[in-house]
Amino acid sequence: MYLATLHNGRPDGHLVVVSTDLSRCVSAGRIAPSLQSALDDWSTHAPQLAALSRQLEARDIAGQKFVPADTLAPLPRAYQWIDGSGYLSHLERVRSLKGSKDEELQSVRPLLYQGGSDSLLAPTAPIMIPEADLALDFEAEVAVIIGPVPMRPTREQAAAAIRLVTVCNDVSLRRLVVDDLQNGFGFFHAKPSTAFAPVVATPDTLGDAWRDNRLHLPVRITVNDALYGQPNAGTDMHFDFVDIIVEAARTRPLGAGTIIGGGTISNRHDESLPIKRDGTGFACIAEARTVEKIKYGRARTAFLQPGDTVRIAAIGQNGQPVFGEIAQTVRLL
Amino acid sequence: MYLATLHNGRPDGHLVVVSTDLSRCVSAGRIAPSLQSALDDWSTHAPQLAALSRQLEARDIAGQKFVPADTLAPLPRAYQWIDGSGYLSHLERVRSLKGSKDEELQSVRPLLYQGGSDSLLAPTAPIMIPEADLALDFEAEVAVIIGPVPMRPTREQAAAAIRLVTVCNDVSLRRLVVDDLQNGFGFFHAKPSTAFAPVVATPDTLGDAWRDNRLHLPVRITVNDALYGQPNAGTDMHFDFVDIIVEAARTRPLGAGTIIGGGTISNRHDESLPIKRDGTGFACIAEARTVEKIKYGRARTAFLQPGDTVRIAAIGQNGQPVFGEIAQTVRLL
Repeated sequence: MYLATLHNGRPDGHLVVVSTDLSRCVSAGRIAPSLQSALDDWSTHAPQLAALSRQLEARDIAGQKFVPADTLAPLPRAYQWIDGSGYLSHLERVRSLKGSKDEELQSVRPLLYQGGSDSLLAPTAPIMIPEADLALDFEAEVAVIIGPVPMRPTREQAAAAIRLVTVCNDVSLRRLVVDDLQNGFGFFHAKPSTAFAPVVATPDTLGDAWRDNRLHLPVRITVNDALYGQPNAGTDMHFDFVDIIVEAARTRPLGAGTIIGGGTISNRHDESLPIKRDGTGFACIAEARTVEKIKYGRARTAFLQPGDTVRIAAIGQNGQPVFGEIAQTVRLL
Repeated sequence: MYLATLHNGRPDGHLVVVSTDLSRCVSAGRIAPSLQSALDDWSTHAPQLAALSRQLEARDIAGQKFVPADTLAPLPRAYQWIDGSGYLSHLERVRSLKGSKDEELQSVRPLLYQGGSDSLLAPTAPIMIPEADLALDFEAEVAVIIGPVPMRPTREQAAAAIRLVTVCNDVSLRRLVVDDLQNGFGFFHAKPSTAFAPVVATPDTLGDAWRDNRLHLPVRITVNDALYGQPNAGTDMHFDFVDIIVEAARTRPLGAGTIIGGGTISNRHDESLPIKRDGTGFACIAEARTVEKIKYGRARTAFLQPGDTVRIAAIGQNGQPVFGEIAQTVRLL
């Protein structure tokens, strides 16, 4: 089933069930007012939501038109947002010019950072930046929303906790990354609010596209309608979502509604931008720039500027966005 | 006014107003079911809660006995927990043996880390650790809970956003700190769930003890009833809470219910443990060990072991805990 959160003037919005073709939706308010409340008692609510979904799909319920522009992030605020490093080639490219010392470590265990989760952006919310020259980048990622996980879970417990799948844009201010990391306390100023696609789906709904704890779909990214990338999120994902959840729960339990990111999607290749129609490309600008530096001696692709629009969507076998589209325009505060 | 959250089997507990002497409480359920919901619309709810508090104080309402053991953390889960470095001597001591390169930077701007906030521990919850030898430490801190703050706020906006004050125990696994920081993504495994005192207070309730955006009270820490420290949280706090909030909002707004920590309380002195009855001591074991290494060539104070009990409380002028007491016993998973 597909779920979304509609804007209703309240911080947590209003939960709706969405049809598979993303054309119609129906209020789930009589089951759970918000996605977090559904997740707080998933074993009770999920079957009820699934029944409502079947009625909507069978047109026993007409529902209303689903308007992605009326959505908030599926969880407009969450109690936890943890981003993992599933794809080694992302780290290798981003770190290749810095002589990282921990390459061995990062291929044994996924790296994690604790992201801010108090304001998660709607799919069409602007990216508000306080200054134009902060080297603004997008990061297209797959994210899962989980149920409660105990400390030191088994892989089976971690896999069973995966409730919902979607894609997100982990907005990054590259110029502040070095400061954040040199301070020694980790990412903070370099990682403002993350944006999410309008719709989340249960893994079973995704059929063959969800297997091996990975999403096997291309994720297409354009900037001002130029194609920057369409890497497959299931390819070259060294650590799957279960690896990341197990690692995240090494010293702590994880609460219901925790969002886990798979890291910037990254496929191994040595193309540079612009890519051909069947090219792979990149899910962030920093990687494109690294490849350019190696190939041409200098980076050519600019970071995002005020007025630029980035679009991110996972593409299904029918060529349509599975979770709807993230479409954000950069605005100066 | 004083507020607390009672255990009721639900994740967010039940909001109560507590009497100034912490002896009685009354349900605030008819105003707001949880502290987060009160914070979501504070300008409406705070006057109603204050009126209820006055009735309780005047004994117009008898209320029920307030039992700290029945409380959860005031926010049992929060959308954000940001810890700042208010006290330079904490960083200096903890980092002194590592030859930190960023001493200059850290005295210009407070360092911040994004903490996990999906499960915040009740004041008497055990500290569950997955292994005995992780160098378990406490960190006694002052924390404030704030209302919404825009990106790049003025100092006046930041000060006006401070809603509630309390103390917390930022549990730290020192053996994992180096790994976390070498990974380059910042604190994660080294910082499991933080515990909070049973009661939060509005700044106006604290009278002279809250001034200059600091809590001017000694915070007393014992381990198995031995006095480890009673530093004054208002002394040597280089960055006040407004400095920390302004820094936290450099590239992002902050949502209602964000918890801001002032960092491990630390007063400048060169005493070592055990301290005299009027001594200052330390708000974490790592600092005591650093002073011992410098003085005696080796650390003598052990990190916490399973079975140890740490107690933390801010002490009012009447000698009583202002926010109640954190009393946690270490347990092996």
